[in-house]
Amino acid sequence: MLVNGKPGNLISIRDRGLLYGDGVFRTLRASLGQALNWPMHYQKLQHDCTALGIASPDFKLLSIELNDLLELHPNGVFKVIVTRGEGTRGYAPDVTAGASHIWDVLPFPDYPVDWSSAGVIVRLCQVRLGFQPRLAGIKHLNRLENVLAASELGNSDVAEGLLMDALDNVIEGTRSNLFLVKQGALFTPELTRCGVAGVQRDRVIEWARRNDIPMQIRKIKIEELMDADELFLVNSIMVLWPIRTLEGRCWSNFPVATTIRHYLEGVDG
Amino acid sequence: MLVNGKPGNLISIRDRGLLYGDGVFRTLRASLGQALNWPMHYQKLQHDCTALGIASPDFKLLSIELNDLLELHPNGVFKVIVTRGEGTRGYAPDVTAGASHIWDVLPFPDYPVDWSSAGVIVRLCQVRLGFQPRLAGIKHLNRLENVLAASELGNSDVAEGLLMDALDNVIEGTRSNLFLVKQGALFTPELTRCGVAGVQRDRVIEWARRNDIPMQIRKIKIEELMDADELFLVNSIMVLWPIRTLEGRCWSNFPVATTIRHYLEGVDG
Repeated sequence: MLVNGKPGNLISIRDRGLLYGDGVFRTLRASLGQALNWPMHYQKLQHDCTALGIASPDFKLLSIELNDLLELHPNGVFKVIVTRGEGTRGYAPDVTAGASHIWDVLPFPDYPVDWSSAGVIVRLCQVRLGFQPRLAGIKHLNRLENVLAASELGNSDVAEGLLMDALDNVIEGTRSNLFLVKQGALFTPELTRCGVAGVQRDRVIEWARRNDIPMQIRKIKIEELMDADELFLVNSIMVLWPIRTLEGRCWSNFPVATTIRHYLEGVDG
Repeated sequence: MLVNGKPGNLISIRDRGLLYGDGVFRTLRASLGQALNWPMHYQKLQHDCTALGIASPDFKLLSIELNDLLELHPNGVFKVIVTRGEGTRGYAPDVTAGASHIWDVLPFPDYPVDWSSAGVIVRLCQVRLGFQPRLAGIKHLNRLENVLAASELGNSDVAEGLLMDALDNVIEGTRSNLFLVKQGALFTPELTRCGVAGVQRDRVIEWARRNDIPMQIRKIKIEELMDADELFLVNSIMVLWPIRTLEGRCWSNFPVATTIRHYLEGVDG
């Protein structure tokens, strides 16, 4: 672990990341000493920092720190957090204070090996995502909605929960983005009022563009999900999981999802 | 400063308070070695912990720590934070992990002395509060909306900003609760879908009940504010500020607000 470039696992209790969740983060996968899609993750991190008015650490600086960590930990889950730094004067940001940045390395989660190929059981969560257009898409540290949603799943066979907004639009998984396949076309929910836009979501969208696969980013209702040919979830750690069961409906063939998974697993952006 | 009962100002980078804003806090005022309204603050802290499923630290334990700190710092702003503790397994809470609790002491802010009597300049913020009934009223650590709102005010003479929800209901100040006086009755916004319920808000409501002053907790639009006899803001640090200017409308007499301020300043619950 690194805190502002130095080995350590502690941060000030006055850091605004703790006080207000005033920061952003990304989670990426390292394999054989390579951090997968790091440039894309940095681009998102920088975008999210800018959206909150936080000075994002330099790409070169973060890359050097990441490479140092990769020498010690060639495999695992890497998490980078950038906060607005220390502050005690209330909610208004102190423009003179510098951002904090933190690296943590965690073991790879022990997901059952067949979830990527045979698919996962998914449930609808009861908690709904609130609308906040100013924060939508950003992977910020205000994640209580995700905590509430994940709490609903318990220690069951359910691999992931789907979240809807207050108007019954399906938005995402608790920690993943959702795609729908119907008659050869791809669909994914728009994230303009809530939700987190992940790197793998961008990669699927880009794959569809490159391969001339029709791709729509728009509002999606649960009825459309039930009527889909395939459903799948993506994030940088699980990569891609097809959905085999959702609220009583079952799927068993995932030709499009499998093709996309092979692309996501094989290419390092 | 105390972290889990021990002197210190550092916390683990794996604390869920930092990772997800997964915790709650209260801010209270100490004067001459007395923490004002501490039992009420504890009650709110406990309520908010329960609402999030966090085990709240014992009242006796926190009171002992608070008293130790008051011997060193008889005057100032005391902040207590309770988080769900450390965790690395994603959003789902680890039920075996214990909560963390943190005390910080800060100097009293140097507000102009006449703001309590002559009133303050207040502006409407552009950012709107999102609806999240599951988190409404709770003083949790997901405070990016407040950060965005406070950022709008800048270094001006504006003492506080008012926040509306997406349906044009006025909800609160960025760090205070709002009351309206009209024809001898009191009104304050309902906080069932967004907003933070402060201790001083409860105290004003209780004061009205004891004194047979009509008191309504309901939706309030900006037009009603402009038509009010008096407006005032409360929190545990400022105690009470009448509003003298809001978006071009001015007030100069605050008889009800002044009576309530004297009550809030004089009584230790």
